[in-house]
Amino acid sequence: MKTQRILSGMRPTGRLHLGHYTGALENWVERQNETLADGSRAYETYFLVADYHSLTTSLDTSPLDQNSIEMVTDWLAAGIDPEKSPVFRQSRIKEHTELFLIFSMLITASRLERNPTLKDQIRDLNMDAITYGHLGYPVLQAADILLYKGNTVPVGEDQIPHVEITREIARRFNNQYQHPGTGSVFEEPEPKITRFSRLVGLDGTAKMSKSLGNTILLGDTEEEITAKMRKAVTDTEKLRKNDPGRPEVCAVFSYHKRFTRSQDIDEIEKECRSGALGCVDCKKRCVDSIIRELAPLHEKRAFYADKPGLVRQILEDGEQRARERAQATMREVREAMRLG
Amino acid sequence: MKTQRILSGMRPTGRLHLGHYTGALENWVERQNETLADGSRAYETYFLVADYHSLTTSLDTSPLDQNSIEMVTDWLAAGIDPEKSPVFRQSRIKEHTELFLIFSMLITASRLERNPTLKDQIRDLNMDAITYGHLGYPVLQAADILLYKGNTVPVGEDQIPHVEITREIARRFNNQYQHPGTGSVFEEPEPKITRFSRLVGLDGTAKMSKSLGNTILLGDTEEEITAKMRKAVTDTEKLRKNDPGRPEVCAVFSYHKRFTRSQDIDEIEKECRSGALGCVDCKKRCVDSIIRELAPLHEKRAFYADKPGLVRQILEDGEQRARERAQATMREVREAMRLG
Repeated sequence: MKTQRILSGMRPTGRLHLGHYTGALENWVERQNETLADGSRAYETYFLVADYHSLTTSLDTSPLDQNSIEMVTDWLAAGIDPEKSPVFRQSRIKEHTELFLIFSMLITASRLERNPTLKDQIRDLNMDAITYGHLGYPVLQAADILLYKGNTVPVGEDQIPHVEITREIARRFNNQYQHPGTGSVFEEPEPKITRFSRLVGLDGTAKMSKSLGNTILLGDTEEEITAKMRKAVTDTEKLRKNDPGRPEVCAVFSYHKRFTRSQDIDEIEKECRSGALGCVDCKKRCVDSIIRELAPLHEKRAFYADKPGLVRQILEDGEQRARERAQATMREVREAMRLG
Repeated sequence: MKTQRILSGMRPTGRLHLGHYTGALENWVERQNETLADGSRAYETYFLVADYHSLTTSLDTSPLDQNSIEMVTDWLAAGIDPEKSPVFRQSRIKEHTELFLIFSMLITASRLERNPTLKDQIRDLNMDAITYGHLGYPVLQAADILLYKGNTVPVGEDQIPHVEITREIARRFNNQYQHPGTGSVFEEPEPKITRFSRLVGLDGTAKMSKSLGNTILLGDTEEEITAKMRKAVTDTEKLRKNDPGRPEVCAVFSYHKRFTRSQDIDEIEKECRSGALGCVDCKKRCVDSIIRELAPLHEKRAFYADKPGLVRQILEDGEQRARERAQATMREVREAMRLG
């Protein structure tokens, strides 16, 4: 069976929150550790600190270094094993930019302008003019994935258009250039539709997000989580402890559904609806559930958090390994293109 | 006085013709050899085989290697001195792509869409959709120039908009990122308006051009030039040898103006108008003038033409030197951006 290879990445935004965990990181760790019947790994996994991608939305590079270290600390805490999965910064591996330039010749500008995600971003960020690099970020993503011969891309439904661009570029490269020895250089990667659970924010808005200040960080202590949970939005019509509540409009209940043991969720829902369970107690139970979930992560995190030097070393090692892989791919690309 | 630095390049189209010579190469050699009062060089010169740029108009890379060797052979024949001027292929120096990606974040897509030269190209090439890379070629040009700290750009009037894009990108980089030690990383390069003389084609069309098959190659022998000149378009109303002619509509006279000794040009013009000079004789004199001009070039060319191995070595040496310069610039860029 052919090797399944996954390249996943995040922009370095600093410390991660629960939304990153349920929305991506948890899945990364699962794929990293998944094994086949014979005990071998189901996937080769590569994890990218997408620092060049950060430039598409902010030119301020001053926080990137610190943010990268903090983010990778949380990756390691969550169970990313740097021996299994190279962890590396995009900007340290020149081959990303080389393949980006080559791929830029294989897709039209108008195809990129029709990218629906870009249209959403322009609207959300209220941008009047996007940069040339921003327009090309799906091309850079294609280079990120194909540089490591990624052939499986775990995505939510909304990201399928991006994988489609990567597939088009791979196809066009193969149509135009064939390696004299091995033929097609790239596989068209398959999207692997994955249900990522988005978390609502503590303020009840649809998405936990750093910029909205409505997050629980993966590294938050029990005290910090308790303090944040105290302010979490519940059913605004449940004014008194014994008023009946509506779990379906309550941010806290949405966390219960994700972090509390399933046998307890029904009980919490019933007692909320009947008015037997007040929000203060309900929140306490929710904090307990989150803390139980995060306990192994906190333990690992305590090991890495005061060792930024070690995290840097892990990155440099990952960069060395990723670079070798990337250079091998570029040798093939150059041979296929007869660029010498 | 600060060092004046020039980066000039051509796409590798194979053997060069007289139009390349008068339109660029002759000027390159002049700038390379120009000295100041104290005998030192007026310019540091770098000459680029712009192979990545070729991809904007054709994805067929199979002729690039051979075309590069042939073109550089003509550069050397024309007097480019590889000891004075590093001669190198863009695709061999990854730093071009790295700076291209960074610069892509510093200019809007709509600014590039307004590029008048691009609009002309789309019309001339009858393209219905340009690639993303084609849209970005002025960004790659900016990277080419600034990677070597080019601060003077010899240009014809029509290319000033390109230099303006390079200046904008340099300015934006400096506004956004300052090097902790040296401040601004880039100078805004100055356009140096240069009158490049365009040659009309042998068929009388406005431009000597390989694709129109109306060229005299720099490496053509006297016999080849004579044969081509025989078919050159003159005044179509001068049917017989002794008919009076109109030099102003004659391709051959336009070559006289460029290659014949000035004291002889007036005489040729007078005798053509009076009917004393027939086209056959006039063309002979024109061939003599061109051969006289090309004699030193032919001599050098004979040395290099059967030594493709030597030309390759010259390129590899130039690439080594250019790479060191490029890497020094990228170190500054990364330090200014704190990319480590």
